[in-house]
Amino acid sequence: MPPLILAVNAGSSSLKLAVFRSDEQQVSLLATGSLSSVGSSPAKFSYALASSPDAKRKSDAPRSVQTHTDAFEYFLRVLFDDEGFTSEGHAREHITHICHRVVHGGRFTKPVVIEQDTYDRLAALSDLAPLHNNRALDIIRSCHDSLPNALSIAFFDSVFHSTLEPHIYTYSISPTIAKEKSLRKYGFHGLSYAFILRSISSYLHKPHSEISIIALHLGSGASACAIRNGQSVNTSMGLTPVSGLPGGTRAGDVDPSLIFHYTADGHNVGRMSADATRELRITEAEKILNMESGWKALTGTADFHEIATSDKLSHKLAFDILVDRVCQFVGGYFVQLEGKIDALVFAGGLGENSPELRKAILDRCACLGIDTVDPKKNSSAEEHEGPVYEIGMGGTRIRALVCETNEEVRVLFYFISLLTLTRFYSWKSLESVF
Amino acid sequence: MPPLILAVNAGSSSLKLAVFRSDEQQVSLLATGSLSSVGSSPAKFSYALASSPDAKRKSDAPRSVQTHTDAFEYFLRVLFDDEGFTSEGHAREHITHICHRVVHGGRFTKPVVIEQDTYDRLAALSDLAPLHNNRALDIIRSCHDSLPNALSIAFFDSVFHSTLEPHIYTYSISPTIAKEKSLRKYGFHGLSYAFILRSISSYLHKPHSEISIIALHLGSGASACAIRNGQSVNTSMGLTPVSGLPGGTRAGDVDPSLIFHYTADGHNVGRMSADATRELRITEAEKILNMESGWKALTGTADFHEIATSDKLSHKLAFDILVDRVCQFVGGYFVQLEGKIDALVFAGGLGENSPELRKAILDRCACLGIDTVDPKKNSSAEEHEGPVYEIGMGGTRIRALVCETNEEVRVLFYFISLLTLTRFYSWKSLESVF
Repeated sequence: MPPLILAVNAGSSSLKLAVFRSDEQQVSLLATGSLSSVGSSPAKFSYALASSPDAKRKSDAPRSVQTHTDAFEYFLRVLFDDEGFTSEGHAREHITHICHRVVHGGRFTKPVVIEQDTYDRLAALSDLAPLHNNRALDIIRSCHDSLPNALSIAFFDSVFHSTLEPHIYTYSISPTIAKEKSLRKYGFHGLSYAFILRSISSYLHKPHSEISIIALHLGSGASACAIRNGQSVNTSMGLTPVSGLPGGTRAGDVDPSLIFHYTADGHNVGRMSADATRELRITEAEKILNMESGWKALTGTADFHEIATSDKLSHKLAFDILVDRVCQFVGGYFVQLEGKIDALVFAGGLGENSPELRKAILDRCACLGIDTVDPKKNSSAEEHEGPVYEIGMGGTRIRALVCETNEEVRVLFYFISLLTLTRFYSWKSLESVF
Repeated sequence: MPPLILAVNAGSSSLKLAVFRSDEQQVSLLATGSLSSVGSSPAKFSYALASSPDAKRKSDAPRSVQTHTDAFEYFLRVLFDDEGFTSEGHAREHITHICHRVVHGGRFTKPVVIEQDTYDRLAALSDLAPLHNNRALDIIRSCHDSLPNALSIAFFDSVFHSTLEPHIYTYSISPTIAKEKSLRKYGFHGLSYAFILRSISSYLHKPHSEISIIALHLGSGASACAIRNGQSVNTSMGLTPVSGLPGGTRAGDVDPSLIFHYTADGHNVGRMSADATRELRITEAEKILNMESGWKALTGTADFHEIATSDKLSHKLAFDILVDRVCQFVGGYFVQLEGKIDALVFAGGLGENSPELRKAILDRCACLGIDTVDPKKNSSAEEHEGPVYEIGMGGTRIRALVCETNEEVRVLFYFISLLTLTRFYSWKSLESVF
């Protein structure tokens, strides 16, 4: 039987999975699954075979599914209990590789095969982003136990930004402490930016290494990236994903001392040991800034379409804040790239689906010589081949483009790239290829 | 005898003072004094009569001068023991007004006469910026005790930015908590920006209300300000002066969760009551981010001339970081102002004295249509009338200007403005004038 490859993307309360088969000449998607509201009871489960996508199953997961590990095991159980799947002869032991999306890769500059030492390094990193890495680590450990013959490979959202120069990634703090505690700008959404870069390169018929763009990944997590000649030269997220642009529940840049004033009643602090207090405070701060802020906190809704089209004062404020913060980055990156860019590229859920947001941003950025909005192209995404399409009038050198980067396309892209590579290279040697 | 007016500027370890006489037709500076390294023993004292500036006295202050209050009292003692001063008939009881520079004015939108209720509001604010307001408050209290007949008036560095719109000053956090704890962008360096605006208006022969500029106050404290039609529409400092640009010992923008990782050994935490712990942590965070970071932390020296002209790797890094961060703000503000600006204006110690820094910034910003550097004008500040001079080639619409804003000129400007007003208005009614 051909080997099976599992792709795993663990969010803070969600888990997305895809199963591929790697044949001699071809790579194919076999099944996808997702669990959301993990941790609430019950979690929501959805599952489909690629051969019959219309027969998508949606149901509540059993109440016993409480953690990401439970959710992962539940998916495997459903998959290998599905006769539509197993009738092809697939079995657990055919899974040879598991590809994990890991948000924070610290100083890792390439995907890595996870062995004990890399696991330990990742575990140490999770202190930098407890909210983001812990779920993936739980699942990696679970894979190690329940699928002992499969290799786990970590793909990091931070790797795309390993090309940042020191004067971009260095914070103006003590270099000794920065080094000792790995405090620097890392940047995230790298899997998305790599996909955008490849798509724009193909759309503009230019090699990667000649593409310079400002890319906006605007979703409930949002960031901006300056790409010069195919390499990330700046990005708005930093040490953790909380800095930069505001998101659905994420604050984005705030005064570095704000959180002390935010939690200034000091409850729960000072009654525990030094270490416990520290843990609580980091986690508390991470939680407030990542989960209890953003446009949901400002408006009460996470639905950006509602925000972008409402007359309510709080909605208009949240919309204007996002437009302003995005434009600040576009202006800053424009100067950093000395104006030499091919396009401003919109991606992510809002970038793809909010013509109001795109128009507001492009209206402001006209002073940079970026193309202005063509109302028709902007409001009705026309039929287009491939993930990229144009929304500008076409009157200027710098184009206004949208790049569709929905998760499944991205996952597919990655694993197809990977599997292409696996025909020529062993997994072990992957490190030197990426 | 004509009334005396005292101007007081209390920094974190310094105190600057000036004494003016307000005659019928004329305002004159009588004496200046300053104390630095207050808190170290001994503090450094300097004192001069305006009538004999060459006879400047420099000495160590007595060891008994330990606090800002001690320093203030010491200055008054020296002043009124100086026969060169008292021979004119001046005495303590002639001091009618004391003007205090206060960094953080919170929601105050005008200078205010300090009475019990305004003092209490300022004291509450000092929790937002313990490092910045406390010294001024100590001196205000001391004035109340030792000069009970003089009115104290507070001038706030944040007032100039009271014109920021909600989508600029609002952080993407819970609006309830933001309101309850006054968490918003305030902005600082306002006295400097007001002076720059007035000077540029005079230099360009245009009224304030028609001046649109990006102003850079680059000193050991550094910030940027976008001014549209004479009003501040954005600035880089935020809830406290720590956000935005890096400074001599100030970090500028860092990931909002960085400080937790910086202090992650948790020493001193968890062994005290909730309130004490909170106090310590805010103060500790403020201290690290304001006093132990910035280009001094990166290079070991606070001398920016040395940094800008050295080949040392750490010096070059610190220089490149500052150039990048400044350019990010210039680009962002350019978009916010839709490119409609008269000039990019350099001010502050570095803005005035570092041709290397000005050149590096202007080289990058040429892509915005801002004037490029004229090497001769930039390197040798020519003779010029008034505080403003040009350093660009003059080939573009947007000019490159330097505005000299040294502290004494600023103080003089403020108090002359004030004293002009006092001839027509009572102090009490000043609030409605500013």
